[in-house]
Parts: sequence; C-alpha cells; structure tokens
Amino acid sequence: MILNFRHEIGGEKLIIAIAQDKNTREVLMVAYMNKEALERTIETGMAHYWSTSRKKVWLKGESSGHTQKVDEILVDCDMDAIILKVEQKGGACHTGYYSCFYRKLIPPEKLENIGQKVFNPEEVYRG
Amino acid sequence: MILNFRHEIGGEKLIIAIAQDKNTREVLMVAYMNKEALERTIETGMAHYWSTSRKKVWLKGESSGHTQKVDEILVDCDMDAIILKVEQKGGACHTGYYSCFYRKLIPPEKLENIGQKVFNPEEVYRG
Repeated sequence: MILNFRHEIGGEKLIIAIAQDKNTREVLMVAYMNKEALERTIETGMAHYWSTSRKKVWLKGESSGHTQKVDEILVDCDMDAIILKVEQKGGACHTGYYSCFYRKLIPPEKLENIGQKVFNPEEVYRG
Repeated sequence: MILNFRHEIGGEKLIIAIAQDKNTREVLMVAYMNKEALERTIETGMAHYWSTSRKKVWLKGESSGHTQKVDEILVDCDMDAIILKVEQKGGACHTGYYSCFYRKLIPPEKLENIGQKVFNPEEVYRG
C-alpha cells in the first residue's frame, strides 16, 4: 500500500479519512483508517474506518444502515490523509444530523446549531 | 475551551482541523491543532496549526505567504474535530496545488493527478 499510515494512536498505524458528499461537497465526518479498513473500503466500495476507542475496523452504517458508498478516493500531498467522495444514505452523524459538523463555534465557548436533522437516533439505534 | 483535544500524538493533545474553501467547498488540507493553535486562530482570524514533526504551532503561510483567512469554524459531534471555512491565498499545498488533495487513487497503487497548480514552489520557497 502506497499510503503513509503515520498517525500512531493506541499502537495502531493510521491515516486520516474525511468523508465528503460527492455532490454537494459538504464534509460529513472525519475518522481514521488502518490498512485493513482502507483495503475493505476499496474491496467493497463502502466506507470502513478504524475505531480508536473500540480498537476494531467498522463498516460505517453497520448498526444504523447509514452507509457511505465510495465514489472516489483523493490522496493528499504527504500520503497520510484521504478524502472519500461518498453517497451518504440517511445521515452521517449518530445524532441524526446529515453531517457530524452540524454546529458553528461562536468563540470562545458557544455553539450554534446550523445542521440539518435527517433521522431520529432513538428510532435508528433502538434495540 | 470546550473542545476535546483527545488525539494524543507525540505527547501533545490535539484536535483534527480540516480547511475547506468557504465558497467552493473544496477541501484544502487537514492538520492538527493544539489548544494554543486554536486560540491563536480565533484571536487572529488566520489559521494556525500544530506541526507534529516540528512540535510547534505554525501560522499557515508563514513562509509562503499563502495564508488562510478563517470565516467560520464548525465543530463535530464529539468535539474532537473542526472545519475551518477559509479564504485561501495562493494555494494550500506546498507542492503548488490549490488543494493538498490533488491526486485520485486508482486502486491498488496508482495515483492520477487531478489538481489545479496555482504556483511554482521553487519560486515561493526559495532563499
């Protein structure tokens, strides 16, 4: 693999992966990938990430059904970060928003909600 | 500071910062910020990052002049990543491209150049 998995967190070598809506260019989320997550993403065409808390590869949408179909992968200059251009099913954020970046910072400490809620997390993640 | 500087690299507590063109929504680069880099960004309105290799805060554009004027800061659901909506002077990438993500991955190992070159790095970084 030509990428540089140089971000070492919890002993795992990682790249940064940014998911971006392929049509609107809205940034949906950012997460890490290890080599296996990237390989599975390429093989299946569906975004897989590395969970630094659970220490495992996960398919985005595995419990919610809100998967990301990968249309294109862009690579940055120093090969340690990628952009996934995706078709997002439902919403990217576990809170029900389409993007995880649904709040604007009003410095120093205020947050203004500017996001678009697309599902009810209590319904999606129940049971 | 309300953000969660949970990404620990080289002993430094960091958030992920994505710079995005405020008009076209093109993603320009991704880097880390420590608390001081974020504070300086807010104070000055110009993007500052934490260099994990040089272990210091840097003003984006300090040697090239290719600064990023920050228009808006978006915060993600778990408060450990932000988007800077910026006005990019010149180009974001040290290679001369407008975005650091100037290549498309053709799996498994090929890269196709799709970026827009906006300056000659040999002229900008000489001397």
